[in-house]
Amino acid sequence: MSVAKLEDFGEWYTQLVQRAELADIRYNVKGFVVFRPWAVRMMNKMFQLFEKELEEKGHQPTLFPALIPESNFRLESEHVEGFLPEVFWVTEAGGSSEKLEERLALRPTSETAMYRMYALWVRSWRDLPLKLYQRGQVWRYEGKATRPFIRGREFYWIEAHNAFGTEEEALAQVKEDMGITEKIVHGDLGIPLLFFQRPEHDKFAGAVHTYAADTLMPDGRVLQLPSTHLLGQNFSKPFGIAFLDQRGDERHVWQTCYGPAISRLMAAVISIHGDDKGLVLPPKIAPVQVIIVPILTQKAEKDVLEACAQVKNVLKSSGILAEVDDRREYTPGWKFNEWELRGVPLRVEVGPRDLRENRVILVRRDTGEKTPVERADVASQTREALDRIQANLATRADEAMRRGTRTATDYADLKETLNGNGGFVRIAWCGREDCAKEIQEETSGGVIRGTLVEGDENVGSTCVHCGRKASQTVYVSKQY
Amino acid sequence: MSVAKLEDFGEWYTQLVQRAELADIRYNVKGFVVFRPWAVRMMNKMFQLFEKELEEKGHQPTLFPALIPESNFRLESEHVEGFLPEVFWVTEAGGSSEKLEERLALRPTSETAMYRMYALWVRSWRDLPLKLYQRGQVWRYEGKATRPFIRGREFYWIEAHNAFGTEEEALAQVKEDMGITEKIVHGDLGIPLLFFQRPEHDKFAGAVHTYAADTLMPDGRVLQLPSTHLLGQNFSKPFGIAFLDQRGDERHVWQTCYGPAISRLMAAVISIHGDDKGLVLPPKIAPVQVIIVPILTQKAEKDVLEACAQVKNVLKSSGILAEVDDRREYTPGWKFNEWELRGVPLRVEVGPRDLRENRVILVRRDTGEKTPVERADVASQTREALDRIQANLATRADEAMRRGTRTATDYADLKETLNGNGGFVRIAWCGREDCAKEIQEETSGGVIRGTLVEGDENVGSTCVHCGRKASQTVYVSKQY
Repeated sequence: MSVAKLEDFGEWYTQLVQRAELADIRYNVKGFVVFRPWAVRMMNKMFQLFEKELEEKGHQPTLFPALIPESNFRLESEHVEGFLPEVFWVTEAGGSSEKLEERLALRPTSETAMYRMYALWVRSWRDLPLKLYQRGQVWRYEGKATRPFIRGREFYWIEAHNAFGTEEEALAQVKEDMGITEKIVHGDLGIPLLFFQRPEHDKFAGAVHTYAADTLMPDGRVLQLPSTHLLGQNFSKPFGIAFLDQRGDERHVWQTCYGPAISRLMAAVISIHGDDKGLVLPPKIAPVQVIIVPILTQKAEKDVLEACAQVKNVLKSSGILAEVDDRREYTPGWKFNEWELRGVPLRVEVGPRDLRENRVILVRRDTGEKTPVERADVASQTREALDRIQANLATRADEAMRRGTRTATDYADLKETLNGNGGFVRIAWCGREDCAKEIQEETSGGVIRGTLVEGDENVGSTCVHCGRKASQTVYVSKQY
Repeated sequence: MSVAKLEDFGEWYTQLVQRAELADIRYNVKGFVVFRPWAVRMMNKMFQLFEKELEEKGHQPTLFPALIPESNFRLESEHVEGFLPEVFWVTEAGGSSEKLEERLALRPTSETAMYRMYALWVRSWRDLPLKLYQRGQVWRYEGKATRPFIRGREFYWIEAHNAFGTEEEALAQVKEDMGITEKIVHGDLGIPLLFFQRPEHDKFAGAVHTYAADTLMPDGRVLQLPSTHLLGQNFSKPFGIAFLDQRGDERHVWQTCYGPAISRLMAAVISIHGDDKGLVLPPKIAPVQVIIVPILTQKAEKDVLEACAQVKNVLKSSGILAEVDDRREYTPGWKFNEWELRGVPLRVEVGPRDLRENRVILVRRDTGEKTPVERADVASQTREALDRIQANLATRADEAMRRGTRTATDYADLKETLNGNGGFVRIAWCGREDCAKEIQEETSGGVIRGTLVEGDENVGSTCVHCGRKASQTVYVSKQY
C-alpha cells in the first residue's frame, strides 16, 4: 500500500480493493465490477450468517424473477416515484430485436415482483405470517459515483418480505430484524452500529417508517448498512393482499421488508478494520483464518514441511480454517506481506529452530504480536488467539465510533465538526424538512440520519439551525 | 394427484409442481416462474454439492455482472450466432428512459463477460490454470414452450470457466467435470446418466466438442443434464487470452466450460423418482429427511408429544434432518398425505400403543414399507433406512433407463420405437448432418444425442437411415 489509510482514505481503499484482489473495476460496463474469489468467499460466509439467522426466525427461502413488468412496478405511487430514476429496462429480445409488449424492469428491489404473488398466496389467517427471503442481486442505475462494494449499479443482498395479520406483529418483526443486524454485523463482523429511525423525508419509497443501521467510516463519513422498513398497509392495499380473519372478516395484511446488502458489509469490513498493511479480517468471515508459513533451510526442509502439515491437520480437525503456504517461488518475507495484505487473522511460523524447541510462533494480524506456543497447545492457543482478535477488532472499532460521535450545541459547532473530522454529530432539531435541506446545503452534505431507535436523548430545546422549538434529538453526518 | 404418472406424464408433472408448492407459474412475465421454499431448499443443497466439489478440485468462486456489452458478445462469431436469438436486451435506463450508449445483453451464458477479464488476468504461466465458477441465474428468450424447471426464460445454474496452458490439461478438465456430474447427479440424486459427445452439428456455440449427460424421462423423452465444453482456443484468440510460457514464448490458453443447471436437476428428481402420491426425494437433498407424526389421543397427548420431541432430538443429534408435525388443525391421515406429496423419505409414527411398547413405526416413502423399531435404536435404524432409500431410488431409476435403452437395426424399428415408448435407441449412423436432419423430421423429433464418451459400441456397418457406410454408433431419442 503506497498511501496511509488516515492520510488519504479514498486512495487507500481503491488500492486495497485492487491489491487484495477483492474486485476488478475494469469490467466494461460503467458502474459494474467483477467480484473476485477472496471477496466472494467472504460474501458467501456473510450470506450464510444471514440465511441461518433468518431460517431460525421462521423465514423461508424463495427465488423470484429478476424482471418485473412495468405495470406491477407502477402499482404503488411513492415506490415507483422513488425507484423509477434507478431502473434499467429490458425492452427487446431475440435475434431480430423484437420489442417486448411491455417493458420489464431489472429489479431494483422486489416488492412489486413479490406482492402480486402474495396476493395469490394469502387467503386466510392460516396463511400468516408469510415470511420469505431471497438471496440475489439487484440493479440500480445510480447517478452517484460508484465504488466497489460501497455503491454499484449491481449489488448483492438478501431481501426478506413479510406479511402479518396485525400491525403489532409487523412492529415486532422490525425489532427482530434489527436484532439480526446487531448480532451479525456487530457481533460477527465487529462493525459498530447506530440504529436510527429515518426522518419522514428520508424513508424508503413506500414505507411508513424506515429503520437503518449506520456505521462510521474512517474518513468521518457514514455508511448505511442493513435497513428494515415498516410498510404498513401501503402495499397490501394496491396489491390486494387480504385475508379472512378468524371471524371471517376480510382484512389487509401488515408488511415489513428487510434488506441486508452484503456488498456494503464488505465495504465496512475493508474500511473499518483494514490498516496500512492491508485487510484485517474478523475470524468469523476470513476465508483462511490461519496461514502457516514454513521457514525453510535446505537441511531442515523436509522436517519443517512435515511439521507444517501436521499443524494444519491439528487445526483443521479443531474446525479452524488453516492453510500452509508452501510455494517455493516465494520467500517467507514475501508471503508474510501477501497474507497481511489479504488480512488473514493469524500467521503460524515454523522454522528449524522452532522444530528443535518443539514450538511454533503465532503472529496476530491485528496487533503484530508474536507468541511462541508449544506444539502440543497449538489448537487451543490458536482458538484463543482468534477469539482475542475477533474481540479486539470489535472493541477498537467501537472506540473509534465513540470518538467520532459528539454533540453540537450550536450551528457553528455543527458546521465546523462536519467539515473537519466529520463523524456523527448530535443536535436538537425542529423536525422540518426545509431545515434539513438547508443544513445539508450549508454543510456541504450533512444529512440528518434520524433519531436513535433505542434511547431517549435530549441535547437541547431549540433547533440548532433555525432556533424554533426542537422536537427531537437527531444525528447529522456526511454520508456515502 | 388426480392423474397417474405413467398415464399422462405432462399433466402429472404440472399438478405435482403446483401441489407440492415447488414453483408458481402465475408470475406475470411469460416463461418466468417463482421458485417456492420447498424447491429452493433443494436447489440450495444441490448448489452446495456442486460448490463443494468444485472447490475441492481447485475452482474458485467469482461473481461477474449479469449485463454484457453487445460488443463483447459479438467477439466470437459462432457463439453470437448461436445465442443472439435468445438474448434479452437492456436498452434504456432512468426516469426519463435515456437510451444506453450500447445495448447490454442480460447474460444467456457468461463466456463473453468473463473472457475479456481473463485476458487481463492471465499474463504468465504462473497465472495458470485459472479455474473460476459462479453461482447464479441466466436468461434466455426461449422460443420453445417453457415448463417449470425443465425450460424457463430464467434458470439457475453454476458455470465454471477454465483456462489452461495446454490442450491436455483442458481435456483432463472435461473428464473431471464429467466425474463431478456422475458423482453428484447419479451418486447423490440417483439420476441415471449417459455421457455423450454431441455430434458436430449440435455442439455448444463456439465449442470444439460438447460432452453432455442425458437422462431419460418417464415419457420416453430425454432431458439434457450438465454439459461440459472443450472450447480449445476458439475464444482465447478473439479475446486475446495469452500467456508467456516458461521459455518466454507467448501462447494462447486452452479453455473449457461446465454448466450444471440446478433447475433442470430438480426437473429430473421430480420426474424420475416421483410417483402417483407425489414427490419421492433422495435423502441427500430432502429439506426434511424424517417427518415425525404424533398419533394423538386425548389421554396420551402429552406423553406422545414428548416422545416425538425426544425422537426428533435424537435424530437431529445424529445429523438427520427431522421435524415433528404437531399442528393441531390437521389429522394424522392428512399429514401422511401431505408429507408423501412433498416426498419426505421417511415417516416416523408415534402413538399411545407405540409408547407402551417402547417403539416407533418407520414408514418408507419409496416402498410404503412399515417397520416397528425399538426407541433405543431409532437413530441407527433411521440412518440405515435412509441409506436404503437412497440406494433403492438409484437402482430403480437405473433399471428404468436400462429398460428404456435398446438397439434398432433397421429404420422401421427406429421409427416405431421412437414413436412408441421412446427412450434411447442405438443405431449405426453415417455421421452426415443431412441424414440427422432427415431422421429428425421423419421421426417427428428423434435427435442424435451423439456417441457414448466411454465404450466402443458397434451395432452395424451401414447407416440405419441412408445405407451409407456407418462411421459411428449413436443414440437417438426425442428430447425436452
